[in-house]
Amino acid sequence: MALVTLDDLRDAQKRILGAAVRTPLMPCPWAGHGGRTLHLKPENLQPTGAFKIRGAYNRLSVLTAEERARGVVAQSSGNHAQAVAYAARAMGIKAVIVMPDNSPAVKVENTRSFGAEVVLVPMGVRDTTPAELVAEHGYVWVPPYDDPWIVAGQGTVGLEIADDATALDLDLRTVLVPVSGGGLISGVAAALKLSMPGVRVVGVEPELAADATESFRSGERRIWPFELTQRTIADGLRTTSLGVLPWEHVQAYVDDIITVTEDEIRDTVGVLARRARIVAEPAGAVATAAYLHHADELPHGRSVAAVVSGGNVEPSLLGELLAWPRA
Amino acid sequence: MALVTLDDLRDAQKRILGAAVRTPLMPCPWAGHGGRTLHLKPENLQPTGAFKIRGAYNRLSVLTAEERARGVVAQSSGNHAQAVAYAARAMGIKAVIVMPDNSPAVKVENTRSFGAEVVLVPMGVRDTTPAELVAEHGYVWVPPYDDPWIVAGQGTVGLEIADDATALDLDLRTVLVPVSGGGLISGVAAALKLSMPGVRVVGVEPELAADATESFRSGERRIWPFELTQRTIADGLRTTSLGVLPWEHVQAYVDDIITVTEDEIRDTVGVLARRARIVAEPAGAVATAAYLHHADELPHGRSVAAVVSGGNVEPSLLGELLAWPRA
Repeated sequence: MALVTLDDLRDAQKRILGAAVRTPLMPCPWAGHGGRTLHLKPENLQPTGAFKIRGAYNRLSVLTAEERARGVVAQSSGNHAQAVAYAARAMGIKAVIVMPDNSPAVKVENTRSFGAEVVLVPMGVRDTTPAELVAEHGYVWVPPYDDPWIVAGQGTVGLEIADDATALDLDLRTVLVPVSGGGLISGVAAALKLSMPGVRVVGVEPELAADATESFRSGERRIWPFELTQRTIADGLRTTSLGVLPWEHVQAYVDDIITVTEDEIRDTVGVLARRARIVAEPAGAVATAAYLHHADELPHGRSVAAVVSGGNVEPSLLGELLAWPRA
Repeated sequence: MALVTLDDLRDAQKRILGAAVRTPLMPCPWAGHGGRTLHLKPENLQPTGAFKIRGAYNRLSVLTAEERARGVVAQSSGNHAQAVAYAARAMGIKAVIVMPDNSPAVKVENTRSFGAEVVLVPMGVRDTTPAELVAEHGYVWVPPYDDPWIVAGQGTVGLEIADDATALDLDLRTVLVPVSGGGLISGVAAALKLSMPGVRVVGVEPELAADATESFRSGERRIWPFELTQRTIADGLRTTSLGVLPWEHVQAYVDDIITVTEDEIRDTVGVLARRARIVAEPAGAVATAAYLHHADELPHGRSVAAVVSGGNVEPSLLGELLAWPRA
């Protein structure tokens, strides 16, 4: 499959203008040490609380009039579902979201609040139901990451980082990005390597769901059992493998993938609320956790940016982590 | 005294570029009802956690070389202190911050962490010490709000709201702004009335510190006893009166000032963390509290923006308010 190009990325940037929030780079004076400084890219500010709106909106923007009339279907119990629902409503397109029937009521309610029709199915047929709905109703399938429009949409995060680093005259050396199915890091890595080739792009994932790290080190795309990846508190990063298209991008553009522990993730959710004054979900905190706890694994260099990918966390968990002891 | 002009505001905007974060307007799909929609201006994203960096940086930018060499002094135990310290360090200027000797250790430490010299004095001489330091050492006094450069700097919040409302093609009708000494609302109101005259600017303050509301309604600048204003949980809004220069701006440009209750403030800090995924201090939440709880006092109109002025809240209080029951 072809990698996304700088033109694909710039086109996506134009399409999502006004639909996704143009998030700033936030300097973190509390996090500087040695010659190293941290900037955050707070995607928790997006209207659905995560970067996913970028890819979803870009994908839906290129539907034909005939496809729009048919409607779209997606499968997700998390941030992708809400993003597809939100983007579809903004464009007046019908959205059907397939969710496992054991999904928390609040997630079902949130997705419905954006006007989507939610189809609850047993966990076992979660992955096959969308294809049936496509066959039966003609809906267009919107995958969470294995799609060039989705990758290009998420990559606008990287273009914005590059633009702001230039405007702020940062000596940006490293960008840290959470890794799950790989849509975000694929787009961000492509954007940075094609526009600012000197910047290192480093993926971060939980030690307990390190399929991408293992893939990167071994050179072949590894799939972990769901029983293993579901152990992490970072529920946004429990995908069992990189997508096929993301894996191509990771091999072409990503410099390294490293892991963080559960305690480091817990600690960092609290630090982000207390010091950066933003609410991050555990998945959204892993890149910052790598900056705070794994400085030795990062290249020496002056300026680091970390993507805070989302902020959809249960209030009770956030309350607990606010008081988490700083390691 | 002369009111700030659009040129003053645009000059400030150029000066603070790269020093203050260019915060976005965040759409809040969870807060729409009837034909009314809410956008937030999240100033908690600033490097010192509040809008104050805008005014401080603008003020210090216009010091002469000789003044820079002398250094600056400010009096504050809160967000202004940290902003002056941060801006001074960025420009290589010595900063002395006068704080009451009963200030929480964490605030003293934060201010010192930005490189400022902290002078702890008894509460009773807090207001007279800066003048003595000016006389003795030649420092330049940086007031928190009664200064045209400070007002113009804070007003860049309003210019950015106007620019983004235009870019997003919002039918913006009302902007809600917290009121304390009045620097922020003065600048924001001037910016909006001079660039988007159809927009209503409404100040918001706690019912327990309603000196500005009383001034606005009576037509004369009222001063409340500190014993009264200190009752509010919104520690950033305990100033006992509007400044003299802000009062001129309020009379010229502000359409209304309304109040919110303590419970409404507590509720809104929790809502902002849970739904908007940002950390607001109680003072930072009052404008959003007015949107959520006082819809009947706001003009009917499609789009409302609320300034979230800062996010410096004690983690224990934030934890408590996360679980606050929604009224």
